[in-house]
Amino acid sequence: MTELNIDIPGSPVYPIYLDTGWDSLSDRLRAFGPEYRRICLVTDSQVAPLYREEVCRALASYGAELFVFEIPAGEEHKTLAQIQKLYMFLIEHHFDRHDLLAALGGGVVGDMTGFGAATYLRGVDFIQLPTTLLSQVDSSIGGKTGVDISCYKNMVGAFKQPRLVYMNLSVLRTLPPRQLSSGMAEVIKHGCIRNADYFARLRSLSADVSAFRPEALRYLVEESLRIKKSVVEADPLEKGERALLNFGHTLGHALEKESGFTLTHGESVALGCVAAGYLSCRKHFLSRRELKTMEETFAAYSLPTRYSNFHTEKVLQAVRHDKKMSGDTLRFILLNPLGKAEICRSVTPEEMTDALLYLSKENS
Amino acid sequence: MTELNIDIPGSPVYPIYLDTGWDSLSDRLRAFGPEYRRICLVTDSQVAPLYREEVCRALASYGAELFVFEIPAGEEHKTLAQIQKLYMFLIEHHFDRHDLLAALGGGVVGDMTGFGAATYLRGVDFIQLPTTLLSQVDSSIGGKTGVDISCYKNMVGAFKQPRLVYMNLSVLRTLPPRQLSSGMAEVIKHGCIRNADYFARLRSLSADVSAFRPEALRYLVEESLRIKKSVVEADPLEKGERALLNFGHTLGHALEKESGFTLTHGESVALGCVAAGYLSCRKHFLSRRELKTMEETFAAYSLPTRYSNFHTEKVLQAVRHDKKMSGDTLRFILLNPLGKAEICRSVTPEEMTDALLYLSKENS
Repeated sequence: MTELNIDIPGSPVYPIYLDTGWDSLSDRLRAFGPEYRRICLVTDSQVAPLYREEVCRALASYGAELFVFEIPAGEEHKTLAQIQKLYMFLIEHHFDRHDLLAALGGGVVGDMTGFGAATYLRGVDFIQLPTTLLSQVDSSIGGKTGVDISCYKNMVGAFKQPRLVYMNLSVLRTLPPRQLSSGMAEVIKHGCIRNADYFARLRSLSADVSAFRPEALRYLVEESLRIKKSVVEADPLEKGERALLNFGHTLGHALEKESGFTLTHGESVALGCVAAGYLSCRKHFLSRRELKTMEETFAAYSLPTRYSNFHTEKVLQAVRHDKKMSGDTLRFILLNPLGKAEICRSVTPEEMTDALLYLSKENS
Repeated sequence: MTELNIDIPGSPVYPIYLDTGWDSLSDRLRAFGPEYRRICLVTDSQVAPLYREEVCRALASYGAELFVFEIPAGEEHKTLAQIQKLYMFLIEHHFDRHDLLAALGGGVVGDMTGFGAATYLRGVDFIQLPTTLLSQVDSSIGGKTGVDISCYKNMVGAFKQPRLVYMNLSVLRTLPPRQLSSGMAEVIKHGCIRNADYFARLRSLSADVSAFRPEALRYLVEESLRIKKSVVEADPLEKGERALLNFGHTLGHALEKESGFTLTHGESVALGCVAAGYLSCRKHFLSRRELKTMEETFAAYSLPTRYSNFHTEKVLQAVRHDKKMSGDTLRFILLNPLGKAEICRSVTPEEMTDALLYLSKENS
């Protein structure tokens, strides 16, 4: 059992537990704070058949009245309409300010449950029980919550920190390989932006990770959490440094959208990281050798490093739209050198076009 | 021009300006903080014909791009569906984190705009331009925002402080008399719970207020704001003392609901205050003479002090439901003595029944 504490100004310090089962969940919940009378477990139609029973059994000894609210699986259900259903469920079951929501699932479940908790009765407590690698190393900590509005991702939300994050690492074994890879893209990104040694070690771990070796998974979840922790504690509301976590995401998001979401989030991020690595090279921040190593590392986890099924102009349009929405005219994250990211405000559309061209070339 | 500053931990200090026109709005906005590139004025179909033009003219000199979003007037439109329309409007006009929302209207407009601002892109700035007495003395400061869910009031929301509150007192002249009275109920409540001298002075001011004498209006808005300020600064998230502002609201809300909202909020609060005053008498916290003075003061502002058009059992049911939703089993605000409120946890259903019976009796 590993424990990390996240200390964000303005919110209570909260613990992250890494375990290999659900058994100690009730004890942890009892140990850290207020006594909840009702718990609403929020999960989705994909995760429910796998873990709903187990988690309910584990929570039984906590002694609260337990309810389960299930949402249909998939990003397309990350909507206000689903949140409204959650509100009605909570109202009908008389949930009040002293009760708790628990998110059991991946990023979509976590984002929606967090947003529900941020806004129901102007805020109730919630905890995260992330079941994907992506949500364990990324979305379950840091307090970003939200829903999509029509085709616009995460346009509505709140910063709301959970009271506890409990990760059962053994659930990763049920992840489809493509989902495991998707999470690995963020893990590799963490190495790229913050820790070159960690990055170097990841490449050699791929066989262990693919075989779900517990020590390997624990190592990378823990190291990635440490990196994410240091960034979000320094800048919880994304006023500055937290933007470094967006390495690979500017072009990545645009490619994800342009692919009609046939690329996973991680696959898109891998491509975005390669493109941003290429730009870092062009500015002589990164060597060709380092870029090559980045590509080999992504490839070691079955992540793409080349992609050509897009229209350059449409991708650039999507980038411009994203940037416009965030109010940033030209902010791009580059590596300088590997293991250290920085914000660059001078990337031109021509340079982005070049980076996209690089992605579409055959590996050389 | 009067200025008060509200200092709530975790939010930037914000000013409240009391003026008699809109002329200095742009200067105030420019003086206090960041430069906004776009402003979305949110207003409703009742306020727009009266003040939309004037306010747009006053804001023109600020130099931002100005947009107006209009919602249909009335509590029945305080819904997530309307908020979703606001989000779409903001997305379509490329509003980003550096832009501003401005609420021009009464409590419903302020609550919805504040909730929109709390959640659009995980939070953008907003300001309040309250146009009713009720919103000037009560809802526009303190940061409570929200919407209704089906028939449940304010079930969804966020605590979000505005960056500035600007009150043009001359707009009160266009208020229908019943709306002016409704605001006065909260003003009188402020005196009851915090300042007996203020309370005593209010009764003698009724002629001046009904004649919209500027000095009288400025005096009571300012004094009420000072009281609300002291309470919300001490307890912004309503963990304790802020509950004192709910004096008259426990039975008031229930009567408002039971009347099918034919009673205004203020009329319901006046009745709730009288009922709570009666209970304070029964417990010998308040004299009969003081209760009588309370009733005469409400009556001086055309507010009801007697009401019999309800079923006692239904009102008690509504109270129980409200209490259940807030997680409080038995919390009632009483006066002990006039000018000082306290939380009482020992009010029984029998005592509430008696208080309701008192309301339904003829004035003696």
